[in-house]
Amino acid sequence: MDNSLHIKLAKEFGTPLYIINENKIRRACRKFKDAMYKNYGKDSQVLYASKALSCIKLYKIINSENMELDVVSGGELYTALKSGFPMEKIHFHGNNKSLEELIMAIDLGVGRIVVDNEEELEKITNLRKQCNILIRVRPGIDVTTHSAIKTGTIDSKFGFSFEESEEVVKKVIKNDKINFKGFHCHIGSQIFDSKSFEKSAEIMMDFIGKIFLKLGVKTDELNLGGGFGVKYTKNDPEPNINEFIFYSSEKIKQKSIELNIKQPFVYIEPGRGIVAQAGVTLYTVGSIKKTKNETYVIVDGSMADNPRFTLYRADHEVINISEDEFDCSNKKNTIKERVTIAGKCCESGDIIAKNVEMRIPQIGDILKVRCTGAYNFSMASNYNKLCRPAMILINDKKAQIIVKRQTYDDLISSEL
Amino acid sequence: MDNSLHIKLAKEFGTPLYIINENKIRRACRKFKDAMYKNYGKDSQVLYASKALSCIKLYKIINSENMELDVVSGGELYTALKSGFPMEKIHFHGNNKSLEELIMAIDLGVGRIVVDNEEELEKITNLRKQCNILIRVRPGIDVTTHSAIKTGTIDSKFGFSFEESEEVVKKVIKNDKINFKGFHCHIGSQIFDSKSFEKSAEIMMDFIGKIFLKLGVKTDELNLGGGFGVKYTKNDPEPNINEFIFYSSEKIKQKSIELNIKQPFVYIEPGRGIVAQAGVTLYTVGSIKKTKNETYVIVDGSMADNPRFTLYRADHEVINISEDEFDCSNKKNTIKERVTIAGKCCESGDIIAKNVEMRIPQIGDILKVRCTGAYNFSMASNYNKLCRPAMILINDKKAQIIVKRQTYDDLISSEL
Repeated sequence: MDNSLHIKLAKEFGTPLYIINENKIRRACRKFKDAMYKNYGKDSQVLYASKALSCIKLYKIINSENMELDVVSGGELYTALKSGFPMEKIHFHGNNKSLEELIMAIDLGVGRIVVDNEEELEKITNLRKQCNILIRVRPGIDVTTHSAIKTGTIDSKFGFSFEESEEVVKKVIKNDKINFKGFHCHIGSQIFDSKSFEKSAEIMMDFIGKIFLKLGVKTDELNLGGGFGVKYTKNDPEPNINEFIFYSSEKIKQKSIELNIKQPFVYIEPGRGIVAQAGVTLYTVGSIKKTKNETYVIVDGSMADNPRFTLYRADHEVINISEDEFDCSNKKNTIKERVTIAGKCCESGDIIAKNVEMRIPQIGDILKVRCTGAYNFSMASNYNKLCRPAMILINDKKAQIIVKRQTYDDLISSEL
Repeated sequence: MDNSLHIKLAKEFGTPLYIINENKIRRACRKFKDAMYKNYGKDSQVLYASKALSCIKLYKIINSENMELDVVSGGELYTALKSGFPMEKIHFHGNNKSLEELIMAIDLGVGRIVVDNEEELEKITNLRKQCNILIRVRPGIDVTTHSAIKTGTIDSKFGFSFEESEEVVKKVIKNDKINFKGFHCHIGSQIFDSKSFEKSAEIMMDFIGKIFLKLGVKTDELNLGGGFGVKYTKNDPEPNINEFIFYSSEKIKQKSIELNIKQPFVYIEPGRGIVAQAGVTLYTVGSIKKTKNETYVIVDGSMADNPRFTLYRADHEVINISEDEFDCSNKKNTIKERVTIAGKCCESGDIIAKNVEMRIPQIGDILKVRCTGAYNFSMASNYNKLCRPAMILINDKKAQIIVKRQTYDDLISSEL
């Protein structure tokens, strides 16, 4: 258990505190890399989807694991640049890239621009600069997940329909500056059903076959996106990464033979799957409040550092790490209660987790919220003018601060 | 119409861009001040609830309108300090104030600490420093509004129950450092029903009467909180500020006579009511995408600068200010369609507004989202590593930048 280390870090750096475990990140990277290698051999690559968590130190780790990178904005690209990430290993995403962002990405030499829409294609065409592109397709697949994170439906804001994609291919193959590499699709997030991935692989391969048959155009690359489910709580199933990849790879192999086309180089893009479980957030209990029907355990963080409950009603496990689990005193025998972990924002919706079973903590106890590596730091705000927490990276050798806690002066640094 | 000025500002400062109208803020301040004076005379004051929008320049305006200030964190208090706001005119709120925040507030000499819970009372007691307090009560009122912004229910995380409040009064009157001034309550946000305010005034007065009768303790002050509804769209009713205040003031007067107690000094705390309508956000259209059942108008902002739709499904009016409204060309005759205004974040939930009726814009058109003065800048994140927009303050004389647009370097300034 990391509990004693975490308590030490909470004391040293204060709370709220994000902690990221480097070993866990590397293990997750290797799980995806190994599964891809096992199923596709060397004609495959794993991109880290950085919107889950973007910072310089993390990008260095991703690079050292020989993975590539998916960025969605000039800001993420700039962060990658500062981390020394090889630009040719970066795929640039986004459903409304600005002209400035496209110029920046192409001038820096990013590996792929993942073209999302007509206007973007026009901008790239007008730039008359050499670039490699993937065309983002919305495959029309409806998956079982929160509506805010379904991305591949027929009515998604992302990408082109199949008909539109065909027209785009016709246009770009005539353009000697734009190097068509293949297609991208992404069906959503937090998906546990391998069949959804298999289905999208099948649909995409049929489309690749059609493009070859109708236009004689070869598709070298297929990016199947991310969305691999992560086990947040004991109620979530244990995702089987290899299974996610196995079924789609079998389908791709089968379809390649059936359609008599060369099997494309395959990319996947896990983000949450790489960092979610590697992160925890530590809070200090500041107040316990019993109302008629609720027991609130109120901590020194809030929806400003973890907006996942307020946005998606997402569940996180929360444990009290100040409570010695091997303690045989009477504390051990007190009854667990169902509590709500609430934050310090002046908003009733400011909840970190509901229906948490725990013994009532003592004021000053440190609570650990698990699985906060993804979409916590990256979605953090300064609501209520709260300072963003620090982030600590731990590995076998040491704990190092990789993002400083904001100060009051930081909060007003943009004000004139 | 401010449209031509707004287009000029969009060109000069770029988009997305927050614009705040100083005249509208001052008019809103005076509306509340006048209504309070009319109904209560000089024994009343309006506090601006700064969590709606906190920045130095705004605090200077609030101060020049002779209003007082409600802050909810050390960060807001620090911002007020930097603006030169008189500390004795500040009420310090929050359901989990840290010891550091309490020391800061008391040492700076804030006017009132609004005590929320037992643990806070203990911290203040232990500090043994002179301070004035209000006791926050949850009056057990259920109002018609979004559950995330109901704050006065029996199961709210805020404040004490009546029974607990009585015990707190007993404790603090024995303490010569803690100067008991009165009570605070707040029933929620976006309330249009004057009867809810009247009801909370009645309940609070009955409690004040009871405290006097049982304990012989006089309550000098009553803070009725905020929550006054704001008209976001044409579907919202037009709130009548005077009516909100009239009914509660009548009740307070009546109860003072009935209970034979001195009428307390009354505070109210509008936040949204002061700034929401004074603000707009400008975006540039980057892509139009028609899917099977949706038409997306995709802009260069996102849920990172306006999370209100993603959080609360809140409605905002959106108009195309590049479309000349007095244009008699054929454009005028094109049919309006129902569109979804989507942002540039890589998330399907990244919507600014749904069911907006507009003619399909041209790429590059400037869209104005109305009523974004509250809970936009204050809730903004850097999701997708997008830079927070600039904020421009306009008045009769000039337009001045009061918050700079973040740069890519700002985004990584806390990283080590």
